[in-house]
Amino acid sequence: MDNKKFKELDAIFNPRSIAVIGASKDRGRAGSAYFLGILESGFKGKLYPVNNSCEEVFGVKAYCSLGDIPGPVDNVIVIVPKAGVLKVLDECGRKKVRLVQLFTAGYSEISGEEGKKEERQLAQKAGKWGFRLVGPNCVGVSRPAINLPLGPESILVAPGSAGFVSQSGSLSLRVAHLGDLSGVGFSKLVSFGNGCDLDSLDFLGYLLDDPETKTVSTYLEGSHDGTRLLELFKTGSRKKPIIVWKGGTTAAGARTASSHTGSMAGTADVWGTALKQAGVIQVNGLEEMVDLLLGFQVLGRLPGDRVTILSGFSNGGGGESVVAADVCTSAGLKVPPLTPETRRLLGDTLGVVGSILHNPVDVSQAHGDPERVNRAVELAAADPNIDVVIFEAVLDFLCSWLSPEKFKELFDRLINLKGKTNKPFVAVLPAGRLQRERDELVKRLLSAGIPVYPNLERAALMLKRMNWYQGFCNAGCVFSKSNLPGWSGIPS
Amino acid sequence: MDNKKFKELDAIFNPRSIAVIGASKDRGRAGSAYFLGILESGFKGKLYPVNNSCEEVFGVKAYCSLGDIPGPVDNVIVIVPKAGVLKVLDECGRKKVRLVQLFTAGYSEISGEEGKKEERQLAQKAGKWGFRLVGPNCVGVSRPAINLPLGPESILVAPGSAGFVSQSGSLSLRVAHLGDLSGVGFSKLVSFGNGCDLDSLDFLGYLLDDPETKTVSTYLEGSHDGTRLLELFKTGSRKKPIIVWKGGTTAAGARTASSHTGSMAGTADVWGTALKQAGVIQVNGLEEMVDLLLGFQVLGRLPGDRVTILSGFSNGGGGESVVAADVCTSAGLKVPPLTPETRRLLGDTLGVVGSILHNPVDVSQAHGDPERVNRAVELAAADPNIDVVIFEAVLDFLCSWLSPEKFKELFDRLINLKGKTNKPFVAVLPAGRLQRERDELVKRLLSAGIPVYPNLERAALMLKRMNWYQGFCNAGCVFSKSNLPGWSGIPS
Repeated sequence: MDNKKFKELDAIFNPRSIAVIGASKDRGRAGSAYFLGILESGFKGKLYPVNNSCEEVFGVKAYCSLGDIPGPVDNVIVIVPKAGVLKVLDECGRKKVRLVQLFTAGYSEISGEEGKKEERQLAQKAGKWGFRLVGPNCVGVSRPAINLPLGPESILVAPGSAGFVSQSGSLSLRVAHLGDLSGVGFSKLVSFGNGCDLDSLDFLGYLLDDPETKTVSTYLEGSHDGTRLLELFKTGSRKKPIIVWKGGTTAAGARTASSHTGSMAGTADVWGTALKQAGVIQVNGLEEMVDLLLGFQVLGRLPGDRVTILSGFSNGGGGESVVAADVCTSAGLKVPPLTPETRRLLGDTLGVVGSILHNPVDVSQAHGDPERVNRAVELAAADPNIDVVIFEAVLDFLCSWLSPEKFKELFDRLINLKGKTNKPFVAVLPAGRLQRERDELVKRLLSAGIPVYPNLERAALMLKRMNWYQGFCNAGCVFSKSNLPGWSGIPS
Repeated sequence: MDNKKFKELDAIFNPRSIAVIGASKDRGRAGSAYFLGILESGFKGKLYPVNNSCEEVFGVKAYCSLGDIPGPVDNVIVIVPKAGVLKVLDECGRKKVRLVQLFTAGYSEISGEEGKKEERQLAQKAGKWGFRLVGPNCVGVSRPAINLPLGPESILVAPGSAGFVSQSGSLSLRVAHLGDLSGVGFSKLVSFGNGCDLDSLDFLGYLLDDPETKTVSTYLEGSHDGTRLLELFKTGSRKKPIIVWKGGTTAAGARTASSHTGSMAGTADVWGTALKQAGVIQVNGLEEMVDLLLGFQVLGRLPGDRVTILSGFSNGGGGESVVAADVCTSAGLKVPPLTPETRRLLGDTLGVVGSILHNPVDVSQAHGDPERVNRAVELAAADPNIDVVIFEAVLDFLCSWLSPEKFKELFDRLINLKGKTNKPFVAVLPAGRLQRERDELVKRLLSAGIPVYPNLERAALMLKRMNWYQGFCNAGCVFSKSNLPGWSGIPS
């Protein structure tokens, strides 16, 4: 992306002031929700409500029009009936704003060609006055680092290194929400709706150059310029991991996409092959997307795809071990036998009766003893056949028979051990009744550079995909040469 | 199963008295955990601790040996070192017990032929004295209806109609735990370990005849008599849905299974084909298993596989609708367009601007208004092209802008509506921060006959599999002719 355009887009995420046109004090409406969300989120810049009644909004002096605001306005969020939009855009132009974010809907997503024509008028206004436009039919842009929340739902997530762009507002909110619950921090989140001015190409191009963004992700229904998009992916995937979740891949989905953003979705096969060749990691859903964002954020690069799984942390691990081997192998990971030397040492630690030591390793014979369990993890991690260490524990079981002190010691030792090995650790902690205990442990593990997943299937798929991207990168990527500042550790 | 054998097995689940040999007061050991678990679970029969020190255990008089117990003993749980097992079995024989459940491990799962020989000795003791044996290397049997918990983890789940059998103790515990969290009620849970006497064939045969059990499920690593097992499945699947989760389907999994229960796992392909032909529903993991148990329990039979999805309950539903269509179609369900008449009526209710009305239906234009949202659900449910109604809501979003009163009214109306239609409803409520609110709503929906899933992928897969089984049954099953007492509604 050329420097001028980069600066133009970068400015969008650095507003010194924001005006909300259509800000009302009528709770439950988008106009009040947007305004209140920014007001309460701790956004450091100036915030101005604008509405017809010229009345104070939640204790903040309101203006009758944009022109009445005394200082400069960088970003404008427009929530007005469609009939008033063109007039508002002229006001924005006269005020010399940088960005207009248009929540108002009812364009090409419902009326096809007629809507497209109207959208061209919107874009012409932007061109004429020299501002950029996000929307219409969008929830807009968010930048957690400056406390700028996303959409009328006003989701403010932790700042971090994941960038996300989408036509869809609802899925931007879902990615932000699930990402935040999972420990993903975001650099920028964008929903650009019908994209009559700025669209996928612009925002993806920006995120690929943005130093704050280390992993680029997008939900995509279609593109008006698939060729340029694929070119962008092809160059971009050599710089940063790009994760694409393609919607409208089935007939019913494509029919719905056409009513949604007016996009022609294209077939799954064509997109799938093209994306793969471009070095893009394709996912098929919300959880898969977020799981991969977490993996890249916390683990950075993987040394390989040979995993060991330690089962039986919380109860007998026999069946769990069999299933763990099946799950990881089916996902495409390697589950090699540990060396005879490792198995001998594991036998010394765990005993032989009832023990499964080949890989997976069933540590249940240590009965949760923090020292013996961690000795087993250490041995498995040190095995030359192994690249990644996975352990699984059901806290509802573990806490039912381990004292709080032993429970703490178990994971203290594990975190300490992680600090001394250069191999990635991945935790699988299924949800249960002890939600508070789980939340606390997840935070501790994330801080120690151990990502946490709710089941082994999701952890394995994440690892497989990260490893696929690395294979692609071996031909030479910035990713594979960098020392990955910001790719590791928790959200800043 | 012949009547004599059925009665013999049925008695196992109806013990009037239980003795725990190896019951200790040393918390954290299996012996104390088993005893304390049964003591605290509210088991109505008599419970006797037996141990060498002849000391009181948790306030209950202990006996030095089984023979010292004054009254009759039906079931015995044995947790003693391996060297003492044969002697204990003789004591059990002299006491005329019905069942010995052997937790002690270290047989064929670690020493192959030598272990098998020892197991034959155990089985011979059982044969000689006329009792039945579960194990060795097992956590045993549980029957929630009489407050008999499972294993040393002492999991006592809600009573209900799902039966589960497995070699694996750890996976029995996991199924019980996740099932309970999801709202599944269980009739019987069995982990039979190495199965030297009673095994899959016995317990599956029993559950297929057991009137308390409406759905039969099993985790299976292998069988010493695959032919008989498949015969059993073939007959059984005409009576009740049978769900099989096969472990050891990959090379690494099979290697692990051999260390686990000494089973030869067999290849995935061979099993997969044979199970399908036998009318068995095959699943590939814990969550899939539990999801299907919940589906059969709450929904019973489905009228078909044509679904409608209502998105946008909690925020804009555009992207969510596209993805919902993709997910359901990819899972193999049908997402047909609603009739023009339904769409016209939906248009009257939801308006047209920004609305997606073909199917999925985006109800976000109703802005959570309970009356309009439910009118949309009612219209979609009444469409002649539709068999099943799915709705999705993220409570963290919904509760952020809907008052508690409106929130309650929304679901009150929905539950009321469900009571007036004969079409199944399925709810998708992703987990989030409002865990208490979600738990309460899940309970209300389950009570109203609406099963709840954490994501649409899992709900869709469950529906697809239930529908597959019905297709199989159309050739004529008890299932398809019955009026499904116990297949519908919450656990009793």
